[in-house]
Amino acid sequence: MMVSKERPPISAEKRAQMLEKSLAVFVERGYVGASTDELAAAASVSKQTLYRAFGDKEGLFEALIRTECDRVYDPFAPLVEEMRDVESAEAAIRRLAEQSARLIMSQRVQQLRRLVIAEATRFPALGELYWERGFVRVSASLAQCLTVLDERRLLRVPQPALSAQQLAGMLLWIPSNRTMFAGIAQPMSAGELADVIDAGVAAFVRAHR
Amino acid sequence: MMVSKERPPISAEKRAQMLEKSLAVFVERGYVGASTDELAAAASVSKQTLYRAFGDKEGLFEALIRTECDRVYDPFAPLVEEMRDVESAEAAIRRLAEQSARLIMSQRVQQLRRLVIAEATRFPALGELYWERGFVRVSASLAQCLTVLDERRLLRVPQPALSAQQLAGMLLWIPSNRTMFAGIAQPMSAGELADVIDAGVAAFVRAHR
Repeated sequence: MMVSKERPPISAEKRAQMLEKSLAVFVERGYVGASTDELAAAASVSKQTLYRAFGDKEGLFEALIRTECDRVYDPFAPLVEEMRDVESAEAAIRRLAEQSARLIMSQRVQQLRRLVIAEATRFPALGELYWERGFVRVSASLAQCLTVLDERRLLRVPQPALSAQQLAGMLLWIPSNRTMFAGIAQPMSAGELADVIDAGVAAFVRAHR
Repeated sequence: MMVSKERPPISAEKRAQMLEKSLAVFVERGYVGASTDELAAAASVSKQTLYRAFGDKEGLFEALIRTECDRVYDPFAPLVEEMRDVESAEAAIRRLAEQSARLIMSQRVQQLRRLVIAEATRFPALGELYWERGFVRVSASLAQCLTVLDERRLLRVPQPALSAQQLAGMLLWIPSNRTMFAGIAQPMSAGELADVIDAGVAAFVRAHR
């Protein structure tokens, strides 16, 4: 009787562990410099297991982008319902602003962002995936939230897609660029980020009264 | 009589030529992959000339960052005077917005931006230089312009530094991220950028009436 060559499928837990641990290796070595040996070792799995789960390094990186984009997007989806009950425009925009800043300024997202920007010329499909699965979906969620606030007459938002992008940009342009460029030496403090959020909320609400 | 070993100094023109041509090589090869052989060949100079002018590859890249940051910043400086004569808040903000979008969304700036972001972990000094010489100075210029508009009572801008960052973010967040991530496949059209500018000007003016 032949021994079956079928191997047990990779568990979701092991897959998640490989994804979780891969980011630090990519950050440390760069995408090109990270070897599948190191990526497997970081997750305490064999290289074979890594190949079975993701095909190759690009497959692992693509799965990492999907996972991290979902981690940012998923908490936005329920906000649309929240907007139907929120009491004031100020409270609504503050909720959207704080959630955006907290999720998008997280260290993991900023690290992944740097990696994808670095590789988007060589691997345009990875940049496009990040754009479509990250930016486009979060922007659409914010725009839906603003549409609800417009329908409830709490704010006037005739161009919700553009206004959603403005809100994100007002909040994130400086904190995000600071992380990308000067962040290693001068991270933005929680107090500075709170000032950016306060000012952004106030300006956005005034612009849409 | 000994032949003098002194060589003629590198002309400003030749220096500028090396800087001008280096960006395409860095974009093509990545910072790490670009060799001084290729960088010298691209500018039709000897490797010795390149070393004499910039010391090494990092010196050349640093000089490139300085030059490109100045190219963006220099046209902002005269805007403060313009703000003293501009007729309306709308015209003033449109002038600032169009100048910001045109300069910062230029292909050279966006290419350099990607390169610096990719290397800022390994070479933090380059990221900090870009931040200080690019962002900080342009933000300060915009803030000065807004202060003039506040003094002239065309707008109310009690926090000019934060408002300057908001204006830049409203205009640049989406176009810039689109270039960084999806830009290779889906560049933003002139018409789409014009819509972003129109909406940004209108929202900023309403927020600061």
